[in-house]
Amino acid sequence: MTLKHKKISIPSAAIVIIGNEVLSGRTQDINSHWLSDQLNQLGVRVTEIRVVPDIEEQIKKAVNELRIRNTYLFTTGGIGPTHDDITSQSIAAAFDIPLVLHPEAHEILKSKYKDALNEARLGMAYMPEKASLIANPISAAPGFRMDNVFVFAGVPKIMQAMFDKIQHLIASSAKIFSKTIEIKIAEGDIAVDLGRIQSKYKEVEIGSYPNFESTHAKCSIVLRSTKPNLLEAALADVRKMIRSYDS
Amino acid sequence: MTLKHKKISIPSAAIVIIGNEVLSGRTQDINSHWLSDQLNQLGVRVTEIRVVPDIEEQIKKAVNELRIRNTYLFTTGGIGPTHDDITSQSIAAAFDIPLVLHPEAHEILKSKYKDALNEARLGMAYMPEKASLIANPISAAPGFRMDNVFVFAGVPKIMQAMFDKIQHLIASSAKIFSKTIEIKIAEGDIAVDLGRIQSKYKEVEIGSYPNFESTHAKCSIVLRSTKPNLLEAALADVRKMIRSYDS
Repeated sequence: MTLKHKKISIPSAAIVIIGNEVLSGRTQDINSHWLSDQLNQLGVRVTEIRVVPDIEEQIKKAVNELRIRNTYLFTTGGIGPTHDDITSQSIAAAFDIPLVLHPEAHEILKSKYKDALNEARLGMAYMPEKASLIANPISAAPGFRMDNVFVFAGVPKIMQAMFDKIQHLIASSAKIFSKTIEIKIAEGDIAVDLGRIQSKYKEVEIGSYPNFESTHAKCSIVLRSTKPNLLEAALADVRKMIRSYDS
Repeated sequence: MTLKHKKISIPSAAIVIIGNEVLSGRTQDINSHWLSDQLNQLGVRVTEIRVVPDIEEQIKKAVNELRIRNTYLFTTGGIGPTHDDITSQSIAAAFDIPLVLHPEAHEILKSKYKDALNEARLGMAYMPEKASLIANPISAAPGFRMDNVFVFAGVPKIMQAMFDKIQHLIASSAKIFSKTIEIKIAEGDIAVDLGRIQSKYKEVEIGSYPNFESTHAKCSIVLRSTKPNLLEAALADVRKMIRSYDS
């Protein structure tokens, strides 16, 4: 019996951060970093992050460009009760389907807010037709999923709780392995040799990140691959190269 | 004599963060937040931020889409000496002009590195033809400007020093004024009224940001405008509205 070698394709994801508060410099976005870390740990490669304002045309454009190019798309922000929360209508527009009162979301909000369920809060139950809900264990108002697009709240702890609810849906056939080496050599000194090692291992992604905080030259070399044996081989080559500089 | 009322157009900017380390979840990007804050303070509206990997096609696409749509474009990352530093060649490709050894950059690197100016470091002196240099007071290797595109290093303190060198070039005809009110009311309670105030003041951008950290409802309302008198009027309306809830 022979083993068939199947090409492992790594699922990809893009992230769209929706909110004027990030573009105005008011808020440091921490959602894209958290999501990137989680997705990479699940074996999903993040190909692009975009931050767009609360403008329907820009949200729609980003969502449509990125959902087609990627296995998954995650959005954060813009699903609250105020006038600037326009993510749901923008996603409906992107898919060219109606925005409707979602019966299940309506029930959740009725039971949470009772008499305080005003017109603005009811807005949070409007979603693209046939969207499936993503539960919000913190403030009730759910996120939703439309095909490969996952729509999360912008408040980090709610976003994280929503990701937790859906992460079993993220299919990752390949794990991305990673190794980091910290060296006390300037990256410019090893750059030619490191480039040579990168050329030798096409399936290992090698990055170099200098540190200018200390008075001595410092640099981190990061190797990433879905193939642990290739990662180890490349790592051995990098270590050997570094030893040649020490001596 | 009559004063002519001239429509003040606010300059716009986009930011492209270049680097696999952000997309892999290794590094929290802090450059886009810092730049957004600085630009808004200078009266420049940031319209979009993109994080792209070290892939020429993706850098080129982001740069070309965003430089045309905006008054300014800023990039960070990818101008060091290693194989994954491909920003300069990607910018040259985006402008469809040759990448050449920049004589002034070459002199800077010769005087900094002397005998240690190897092939990899020399790569940092290659720039799109006719690019003008942006000095790097920390690690010598300069950034550059091509038309409305400013190319900075990715290391935050170098990026900040480079921005400092060019900020006098950023023409801002209008300042963006901003006011924040912290309230102890849930945003869903005031959302309808707040939406009404937003409709009344088209030239004031009103944002609402809930806080779920405390047990009591809390929310920040942020008003932004280039017109201080309109900002004050909208602020007075918001304050009046809030008082009506307190009583």
